[in-house]
Amino acid sequence: MKTTLARRLEGIRPSTLNNILGASARPDIISFAGGLPAMELFPMDGLRAASERVLSAQGPAALQYSDTVGYRPLREYLAEEMGRRGVACTADSIVLTSGAQQVLDLVSRAFLDPGDVVITEAPSYLTAFRVFQACEARCVAAPTDENGIIVEALPELIERYHPKLLYTIPNFQNPSGVTLAAERRPALAALAARYGLLVLEDDPYGQLRYAGKHLPPVKAFDTAGQVMYMGTLSKTVAPGLRVGWIVTEPEALTPLVVFKQVADTMSGTLDQRIAYEYLRTGENAAHVARACAVYKERYEAMDGALHEHMPAGFRWTKPEGGLFLWLTGPDDLDTGALLPRALERKVLYVPGEDFFPDGSGRNCMRLSFSACAPARICEGIALLGALCRDHANQGRQPVGSGR
Amino acid sequence: MKTTLARRLEGIRPSTLNNILGASARPDIISFAGGLPAMELFPMDGLRAASERVLSAQGPAALQYSDTVGYRPLREYLAEEMGRRGVACTADSIVLTSGAQQVLDLVSRAFLDPGDVVITEAPSYLTAFRVFQACEARCVAAPTDENGIIVEALPELIERYHPKLLYTIPNFQNPSGVTLAAERRPALAALAARYGLLVLEDDPYGQLRYAGKHLPPVKAFDTAGQVMYMGTLSKTVAPGLRVGWIVTEPEALTPLVVFKQVADTMSGTLDQRIAYEYLRTGENAAHVARACAVYKERYEAMDGALHEHMPAGFRWTKPEGGLFLWLTGPDDLDTGALLPRALERKVLYVPGEDFFPDGSGRNCMRLSFSACAPARICEGIALLGALCRDHANQGRQPVGSGR
Repeated sequence: MKTTLARRLEGIRPSTLNNILGASARPDIISFAGGLPAMELFPMDGLRAASERVLSAQGPAALQYSDTVGYRPLREYLAEEMGRRGVACTADSIVLTSGAQQVLDLVSRAFLDPGDVVITEAPSYLTAFRVFQACEARCVAAPTDENGIIVEALPELIERYHPKLLYTIPNFQNPSGVTLAAERRPALAALAARYGLLVLEDDPYGQLRYAGKHLPPVKAFDTAGQVMYMGTLSKTVAPGLRVGWIVTEPEALTPLVVFKQVADTMSGTLDQRIAYEYLRTGENAAHVARACAVYKERYEAMDGALHEHMPAGFRWTKPEGGLFLWLTGPDDLDTGALLPRALERKVLYVPGEDFFPDGSGRNCMRLSFSACAPARICEGIALLGALCRDHANQGRQPVGSGR
Repeated sequence: MKTTLARRLEGIRPSTLNNILGASARPDIISFAGGLPAMELFPMDGLRAASERVLSAQGPAALQYSDTVGYRPLREYLAEEMGRRGVACTADSIVLTSGAQQVLDLVSRAFLDPGDVVITEAPSYLTAFRVFQACEARCVAAPTDENGIIVEALPELIERYHPKLLYTIPNFQNPSGVTLAAERRPALAALAARYGLLVLEDDPYGQLRYAGKHLPPVKAFDTAGQVMYMGTLSKTVAPGLRVGWIVTEPEALTPLVVFKQVADTMSGTLDQRIAYEYLRTGENAAHVARACAVYKERYEAMDGALHEHMPAGFRWTKPEGGLFLWLTGPDDLDTGALLPRALERKVLYVPGEDFFPDGSGRNCMRLSFSACAPARICEGIALLGALCRDHANQGRQPVGSGR
């Protein structure tokens, strides 16, 4: 009885990420798979105090039905936060959602018709592809380099495919760790204005910068109202609160709010109030600074261990923030096929193929360093390096030797 | 740039409910409009204690990413709760959602293709119509009487329209307050089995019974796996926690989980853990009993006041539980047109038209008695009665007298 669409979505390569989540939780496995923030850093004291204040001082209104657009004081706080990030806006430009994932879904439902083309980075966030596919849109890969999307190459793509939307993660991209260069940001906004292209700017990691300097979002250069910015507290506070938000022109919010009502009436009032009570103390700045220091140390541990243990023919990205780096092996590497052997050796990653809509990326993998202590990172990369060296040695054996 | 669908959904009669929510919050207005649970009853002490236990004892895991299907101990608790309601199931038959609204949306996305027919009660929950319309499904009204859907009349409808889904609120229906009779429940389950029709049973109010005796859900008679049951804590604990759930066959859950990942990855971990920590104490039974007593008193106040103040030609339903009753006036009454005058007199209701997909119900209104103290209910119904008497008197004046 399920729909054609449901069958098609289930038929999409069963996400390796889901299949390995179970293994990922085993204590004997060193997992670089999940893109999880380090939970030992969660600001538990601050959130506990905020929760106590909300439930004691605000009373039952904190648990009643509320506006679909979300708790106004938090929207006002986030408007100020957007100002600090370089985007001038008011609370009326902001809708709160259940994590950034819901922004992706609502924007797609409101703005994508079946058959529409979406330009994405490739690789990109794997569930974004599923969202676009759920709207029966088609994804086309933008040309990218180590500085993100090559904006000068976009006009040709736009003229060929007439895309409705461009989806980008400009900071420490998932999965590549790459950052869109400073000069490409105004250029992308200008291009969106020129072609009437909607840009969805997904920025979950931007605050987690531990090298280089903060860059303004693409939305900061959006004079034509073509850029929608999506943020989340999942990586800077904690994902269990499910607080995401979108910033766009108030008139573009109307169809999003219609779909938000349809989707879940409103997001959690209690979560939004706890988040606001915590954020307004200002103590999260210190928490984010500490998280950046920890992630920097972990990134450097992984980068150093990769230099030590990976054989020739492997290269990897040098992120300036965020949770991930992207490892590319020799052309004959198949990281999906290698995964069971990695699991035997008790180390885990996400195969690159999962981050492409078309099955490419087989010789790549995403490595997340955010949730492991440095010593464990070194241990895990040593295991992975040995596995890759074995693969390289096997590759030099005569054909038919059992590879 | 918005989709045809987004334009169409925005074009649906701008919900009067949304327009009057602002007025509803004014302290000088007596509002029977919102379907809000009485927030002075919310079990704040129990939830505060539960929140404290979760944030102190469970640590950061309470705020980390978690399973898309939801927190297992709460799913196990709800499986036991379903047993108490007459439905044998395990945690593996349950997915937690962001309120029951999200069940409606996920079921529709997973099971409805454009053009599919959904049988609904008419009147019914207004946002359900929007959900079905968002999937481009068509709603067909089932014949109903004071005992709910007339099951014997369904085969003709099924053979004519070949519906994919039947959506019903069997207990103290929104907006009518009507309850599906005991003998119709197994009959509906048998019919669903016979025709391979999916039934979506929405039961937000079933625990709020203050007269008569509890009836088993339609799902209790579902030997063929055709009935999906949806529950929520919004009316028995508090809506701000956003805890809803669906119970169905495990294999039917797969497409729902795919769309749940697409929609928001997971619902709030913290909310689910607080809900579980609170529910497992068992103290909610006393809370629900108190809520039933309060709603009974409020219903009786409204029923009594209606008898006292409404002119001839008005009739209303006699709910045995829940939050609403349904008032029907003379054929020439237009409750939508009357609303501005009601607002002038500082009393508010929801016009009946909002609960039909086709603009019928103009001479009806939904009155919610749940969120007003009895004295205020009597005062408000006196205002409403005066307004209706004026309407009736105007109706007797010669045509052209300014009505």
